[in-house]
Amino acid sequence: MSLFGGLSAFPLTATDKEGRLMSDVLERHLERIVLAGPDSVGLLGSTGSYAYLTITERKHVLRVAIQVLKGRTPLIVGIGALRTDDAADLARDAAEAGAQGLLLAPMSYQKLTKGEVYSHFKTVAAAGGLPLCIYNNPGTTNFTFSHELIARLSELPNIDAVKMPLPADGDFVGELATLRSVTPASFSIGYSGDWGAKDALLAGADGWFSVVAGLLPSNAMQLTRAAMAANIEETKIIDQRFNPLWALFKEFGSFRVMYALANRLDGDGIEPLRPVRPLPLEVHDRIDAALAFFKGPSFS
Amino acid sequence: MSLFGGLSAFPLTATDKEGRLMSDVLERHLERIVLAGPDSVGLLGSTGSYAYLTITERKHVLRVAIQVLKGRTPLIVGIGALRTDDAADLARDAAEAGAQGLLLAPMSYQKLTKGEVYSHFKTVAAAGGLPLCIYNNPGTTNFTFSHELIARLSELPNIDAVKMPLPADGDFVGELATLRSVTPASFSIGYSGDWGAKDALLAGADGWFSVVAGLLPSNAMQLTRAAMAANIEETKIIDQRFNPLWALFKEFGSFRVMYALANRLDGDGIEPLRPVRPLPLEVHDRIDAALAFFKGPSFS
Repeated sequence: MSLFGGLSAFPLTATDKEGRLMSDVLERHLERIVLAGPDSVGLLGSTGSYAYLTITERKHVLRVAIQVLKGRTPLIVGIGALRTDDAADLARDAAEAGAQGLLLAPMSYQKLTKGEVYSHFKTVAAAGGLPLCIYNNPGTTNFTFSHELIARLSELPNIDAVKMPLPADGDFVGELATLRSVTPASFSIGYSGDWGAKDALLAGADGWFSVVAGLLPSNAMQLTRAAMAANIEETKIIDQRFNPLWALFKEFGSFRVMYALANRLDGDGIEPLRPVRPLPLEVHDRIDAALAFFKGPSFS
Repeated sequence: MSLFGGLSAFPLTATDKEGRLMSDVLERHLERIVLAGPDSVGLLGSTGSYAYLTITERKHVLRVAIQVLKGRTPLIVGIGALRTDDAADLARDAAEAGAQGLLLAPMSYQKLTKGEVYSHFKTVAAAGGLPLCIYNNPGTTNFTFSHELIARLSELPNIDAVKMPLPADGDFVGELATLRSVTPASFSIGYSGDWGAKDALLAGADGWFSVVAGLLPSNAMQLTRAAMAANIEETKIIDQRFNPLWALFKEFGSFRVMYALANRLDGDGIEPLRPVRPLPLEVHDRIDAALAFFKGPSFS
């Protein structure tokens, strides 16, 4: 399987209410992920606040993770930045620090053209030299990749995968067939948007880039294994346990819910970096109720 | 007139092809703006690449501008940042450095809620203490201000103005009436989107936040004066001279066109910071043709 296939678990980058990194919490989250045995860790993704951290903070977080993982789980690191020189710097640094792969989103302020995004990816991929996954996340980057642009990028030496948002029409089978017809056989196509993971994997997607696996990696592994083995009934049963959590993800955004989830699970006392704000206390009861679905006799 | 009324001229922050600041070019652009006599300079707006510069670079650019302006023209400075603490830091620094006003866009990565944007603005406005203009630019920030949110923000002590994008339906009169009905009488409502300046000002907008005035300030002043005096025929004649330039702005984005325009006007040799790329050479002929409309016997 490709470095970018299977379950990739995206940890938060824990910060306290003053915005300071809490390395001990990050280390604990990473250790739990490793023990669950996913196919990779997706450090400093959107869930890991990469867009809000300084270049220096990001390089430090990478080193904390390398120390914890000790090569036990492959490490993919988000290197997106508004400036090409910053993203290229992070790509080189990731290679030096010992990461296995890169995840690159076309962060935007001025709306970028296809040609600008192509050149940006070419430059950054060459700088890092590591296998690189295109991070297609229009909701945060304000840029949408056409199939044609993904095809052109997949021809570049080390651009090996794409992380897709859920298709608006829900047609995973059709989208996968189209993308496979224009990319190399070795090119990996995975999805983010946790509530669509079941359908994406059952439709034959290569991987699930999972937010929830940053905190509930064992449960996410169960879902991934069942779906990738095409055990449809088992997959549905496991996915149902996640349903109350998926509802919260859709209502408040998975990023905000993850902070509250971490605090309810472990009492971490972490907060998102402002301007993003913690969810109000009344949501905590719903999170506790959602977590209860994973407990009790039916939980394996 | 409010600090934010009339013509605000937005200079580029000139950089060379390696991404280094070219202070001499910035100084020359600023001097030309001052001589044309606009109502303010809009430093480090979207046109001034604020989103792509480091905090340190931005503080330096502000000091270069303060030195050039010597108080001859009021200075408004863009302080938007993805993090609230960075924006607050820039707001405090702007007050210390001697700027007259602030321009704050809700830069986003995670899609922000209304409540988050309200808290962000409240914190940053209080940190700076200077008159502040809400920068409503959904195309770059991925956040759209409702009239209700503008109304709530206008109640805060030093939030004194809004910079609006062109209304999708072109109804300036209706939008201005609605906004005026929910904001204090002293609250200033101006527009960006240069090709809509004529209609905005003729409809009674308080100001024009102008990209083109960063390089052609005298021509932009003519248009502003004619429109604010409600000289409809004169306004139309002046606006027609701009038409070929407006067409290029709409086709390529005003940000990219401005770099090419600076190079055609003055031979500056500047380039946008990557990933944004210079326009292809074939556009230069169209820019020269657009500039020719401002020359010749009909030019006053």
